[in-house]
Amino acid sequence: MSDRPATPLLDTVATPADLKRFDDAQLRQLADELREETISAVSVTGGHLGAGLGVVELTVALHAVFDAPRDKIVWDVSHQTYPHKILTGRRDRIRTLRQKDGLSGFTKRSESPFDPFGAAHSSTSISAALGFAAARDLGGACDTGHGDSIAVIGDGALSAGMAYEALNNAGHMGKRMIVILNDNEMSIAPPTGAMSSYLSRLYAEAPFQDLKSAAKHAVSLLPPPFQEGARRAKDLLKGMTMGGTLFEELGFSYLGPIDGHDLDQLLPILRTVKTRAKGPILIHAITKKGKGYHPAEHAPDKGHARSKFDVATGEQKKAPSNAPAYTKVFARALMDQAEGDPRICAVTAAMPDGTGLDLFAEKFPARTFDVGIAEQHGVTFCAGLAAGGMRPFCAMYSTFLQRGYDQIVHDVAIQRLPVRFAIDRAGLVGADGATHAGSYDVAYLSNLPGFTVMAAADEAELVHMVATAAAHDDGPIAFRYPRGEGEGVTMPEKGVPLEIGKGRMIREGGRVAILSFGTRLGETLRACEALEARGITPTVADARFAKPLDRDLILTLARDHEALITIEEGAVGGFGSHVAQLLSDEGVFDHGLKFRSMVLPDIFIDQASPRDMYEAAGLNAEQIEAKVLSVLGVDVLEKRA
Amino acid sequence: MSDRPATPLLDTVATPADLKRFDDAQLRQLADELREETISAVSVTGGHLGAGLGVVELTVALHAVFDAPRDKIVWDVSHQTYPHKILTGRRDRIRTLRQKDGLSGFTKRSESPFDPFGAAHSSTSISAALGFAAARDLGGACDTGHGDSIAVIGDGALSAGMAYEALNNAGHMGKRMIVILNDNEMSIAPPTGAMSSYLSRLYAEAPFQDLKSAAKHAVSLLPPPFQEGARRAKDLLKGMTMGGTLFEELGFSYLGPIDGHDLDQLLPILRTVKTRAKGPILIHAITKKGKGYHPAEHAPDKGHARSKFDVATGEQKKAPSNAPAYTKVFARALMDQAEGDPRICAVTAAMPDGTGLDLFAEKFPARTFDVGIAEQHGVTFCAGLAAGGMRPFCAMYSTFLQRGYDQIVHDVAIQRLPVRFAIDRAGLVGADGATHAGSYDVAYLSNLPGFTVMAAADEAELVHMVATAAAHDDGPIAFRYPRGEGEGVTMPEKGVPLEIGKGRMIREGGRVAILSFGTRLGETLRACEALEARGITPTVADARFAKPLDRDLILTLARDHEALITIEEGAVGGFGSHVAQLLSDEGVFDHGLKFRSMVLPDIFIDQASPRDMYEAAGLNAEQIEAKVLSVLGVDVLEKRA
Repeated sequence: MSDRPATPLLDTVATPADLKRFDDAQLRQLADELREETISAVSVTGGHLGAGLGVVELTVALHAVFDAPRDKIVWDVSHQTYPHKILTGRRDRIRTLRQKDGLSGFTKRSESPFDPFGAAHSSTSISAALGFAAARDLGGACDTGHGDSIAVIGDGALSAGMAYEALNNAGHMGKRMIVILNDNEMSIAPPTGAMSSYLSRLYAEAPFQDLKSAAKHAVSLLPPPFQEGARRAKDLLKGMTMGGTLFEELGFSYLGPIDGHDLDQLLPILRTVKTRAKGPILIHAITKKGKGYHPAEHAPDKGHARSKFDVATGEQKKAPSNAPAYTKVFARALMDQAEGDPRICAVTAAMPDGTGLDLFAEKFPARTFDVGIAEQHGVTFCAGLAAGGMRPFCAMYSTFLQRGYDQIVHDVAIQRLPVRFAIDRAGLVGADGATHAGSYDVAYLSNLPGFTVMAAADEAELVHMVATAAAHDDGPIAFRYPRGEGEGVTMPEKGVPLEIGKGRMIREGGRVAILSFGTRLGETLRACEALEARGITPTVADARFAKPLDRDLILTLARDHEALITIEEGAVGGFGSHVAQLLSDEGVFDHGLKFRSMVLPDIFIDQASPRDMYEAAGLNAEQIEAKVLSVLGVDVLEKRA
Repeated sequence: MSDRPATPLLDTVATPADLKRFDDAQLRQLADELREETISAVSVTGGHLGAGLGVVELTVALHAVFDAPRDKIVWDVSHQTYPHKILTGRRDRIRTLRQKDGLSGFTKRSESPFDPFGAAHSSTSISAALGFAAARDLGGACDTGHGDSIAVIGDGALSAGMAYEALNNAGHMGKRMIVILNDNEMSIAPPTGAMSSYLSRLYAEAPFQDLKSAAKHAVSLLPPPFQEGARRAKDLLKGMTMGGTLFEELGFSYLGPIDGHDLDQLLPILRTVKTRAKGPILIHAITKKGKGYHPAEHAPDKGHARSKFDVATGEQKKAPSNAPAYTKVFARALMDQAEGDPRICAVTAAMPDGTGLDLFAEKFPARTFDVGIAEQHGVTFCAGLAAGGMRPFCAMYSTFLQRGYDQIVHDVAIQRLPVRFAIDRAGLVGADGATHAGSYDVAYLSNLPGFTVMAAADEAELVHMVATAAAHDDGPIAFRYPRGEGEGVTMPEKGVPLEIGKGRMIREGGRVAILSFGTRLGETLRACEALEARGITPTVADARFAKPLDRDLILTLARDHEALITIEEGAVGGFGSHVAQLLSDEGVFDHGLKFRSMVLPDIFIDQASPRDMYEAAGLNAEQIEAKVLSVLGVDVLEKRA
């Protein structure tokens, strides 16, 4: 394309090995070209722009100094790896990012040997890198060989407990490994938590070292065989490190802070570490999210995730929509409820924008808690709030709520505390792919005693479910809703609590009944239109509740129809399984019922549009139609002919 | 009973309010009496002895200074709360601890208003206490009122990420709350991790303060309205705290270390904190697990969990057993496999004894990793090991593996890495009750694409499943086995890998087929004996695999029998649900099949013997028999007559 930037040096790079022939000045130029190429690519595909721009120099420095794929570079979250992908043989496909059959927006083992560990959820990199280090030291055979083990992790990701668990364990084990703290003072939202303040203090107290002192500092902190910094000698004398930083207290050698955009600091530090390091080292690099692209640097979220955009102006090319996003519908409905109930408060795990709680926080700042990337703590904090008389709404994406599963069981369900779970991004989510799919929440919540589990069929239902949850004091309750815009239905004036465990009849028909749980209702009704042309008029009901089940509705549907089909946007073990359990317990199968349960299939579905993903899942209108026809034994071709 | 200790002061205590009339000397005597009473009680009931003995003085001091239940004392894990229970109106039932219909071995909201938050899994207390503090400050109505919020947490529990998440969040929020770090340098096993070394250094560097300096130190660290310690003033001037300890860096005021058995230190510190505290405070108390009871102090595990014992000698009264414990069978089988495969390594989360990995570690120390109480990290560390060419066995209890659920999905399953999960304590576990039940693993693993999920029917099967897992390189694999002793079956010379996805026929019969997954097979066969007396000879098969299912076996059983019953030691959504999904997909229900799925019921089952718990669950032989009779329409009374 004519509007692509000129990238003479980058054009000569096929693999990271090609960086070895560049001098430092050329590496600086390469970084500039890499930044332009990244901006250009994301302007076409959309995606996570700011994070990648923040690590352009770091990416160049890592690949110039280390030897991937032998050295294992594990990128945390890995939405910052577009520059890495460009340098590691994937430049030709970089404009397919996050699209069907294109490159993943994250690292992916099956995509490249330069991605030793896939990621997408936060804070896993140190654990994985420690695993590589331990495997190396045990002589494990790895296809790409074994070298250094390097985790690149953002400051926001450090608020997650598992990053701390890994630091604690790595500090204890003492194996050579490198953690690069990419401190951009920003995860997605501005960061929260004491760790974040701590990092800011480190930065404020110790401004950037100049090149010489940075390198000197690096040497002094490392234990080379025949040169001993005075400080280290003293530590050895005492048999312990009582350094001034939290990381040293956890057993890491600490280097920094350094300017993560200055290759004149990055390169010598990394070279020194590569040559000299023993034991675990943490390099604290300060970077700027969106660095070098003005519209991103100046956006409130620093260009975290972008739609396709115009490179010159930064203007995003997003299709206008008529229906409100579920996230906003939830937020507004919760604000309505909170008006009338001072016990209502809301908890997010570092996703105030994504969950809509930024809106809630504007109106109810004291009742909004951002706990950081800390779902385990967030869930139990909600349990404490509930035990203390509040009525917390724990707003998390389905896929991230998995992080708090034990806390849901142990702290909320067993104690039957009135915590309300607002589960966003339930079902398949599109460009973020398999790692972000919300596939399991119905299964892992519906078998917990005392839990109430709902799914909204449309945005009006969501409003009522927020009201239902607000009114429900008898134990925990959850409601799920998908990513994206609603169905465009008429919105209610205000939410009205639903009767617990009662579904609703949508349309009465005959022969086959389709019982939908969640937003497949729309596709189900579209399938019915097609079926009517064939003379089949299914009964359709919206279950609303996976737990407790509407026994009367289900048993009546089973009794009055030849076939009963359940459909949901979740894996087996959820709604359909509970319906099957009821039907078998009641002996409904004893004398025959054509029962089918349409669920997500037993595969991880790669990124595509949500519609394409549901097509792959077999849950779109045409597939519902086909299922009805096959259950009823109608020969499709014959009928069509 | 005549052998109970004399406890004249304790006899006058009905509630903690009674402690207010004692002077400090009397409180010291009360502590001594409380220790004797605790030892006496646990000698009768068995239970967690060492932990309670370690906090006798702390328990007395907390109840003497604070005003529970208005002040919320949240005990982490809470197996150390027997002394607390004795002081809070439950002394009359203390000798029913951990027994059916008796007191829980943990705190429990439904048991007493003095238990504001139940626990059993580690590291939840700071999150819960912060929830109480936030609810208080928001004016939440709590039945017992709102006062101080106090978490008591052990040093081992600090290795868990959620404790750090909570510290990080609490330090950021700055609310008044108190964390008491009960540092006994020991969780269940000797502690591991850099945090543990850090705490030891704090202790080694700053020996106990004497009474005066401890109190003075306390005052100097607190911000009273009109008195400002020099240090704090300087901090305020700088707008930040750059204290010397990790906890101060996380936003806590740090007091300690103090001697947690010395009421002359505990009382003045707690009184000062109660009067003066603003913001979050951490009090670092050094205690000794098993303190004051010689046989416990000198046991390797410091008397962590005891069977009933003789108070004088400490000798445990455990019934001898003929069959080996599943845990040991697993450990030995894994050692056998590791002999022949240097890629095999093993990971435990602070439970080397409980999982049998202490045995493995003796033989393969370099291949054994204790990551601390850190299941999230532990699972992803295994994923890293596997990606690095090793073949890790992740040995965790079912209930604790819930902590690593997201990591199982995101880091192991999506990447299809060959991590092997050895799931101990699967099913109902007896005296530890509902919080330790392993009820959900089959459901939450079996719907993950690419996972293989097995359950051992007996200890010989377990040996083969360890061999199967060792031989399985195509993605993750899990095998579950229960707490306690095996069935006493003949043990194989060596483990032989099973064919993946194939069950085995146990006995051929007619009319009804029972398909068992796991150790209910024994009860199933007992039920068959009773049924034979009625002329019914069920077919019995052992599924071995919940995933992949043995389609041929299941469809054949369904075809050849009037009724098919599945049975498992897990909640709905697991094995039976997958069988139901298969049967419905295949249209088996279309023409009628008496299908029933026997699963754990939709209740949390309180502690009792495992047998009694399975009775409550409806999964014992008599109940299997009754299920068969009812499915076949046999009138039980008539038949019996």
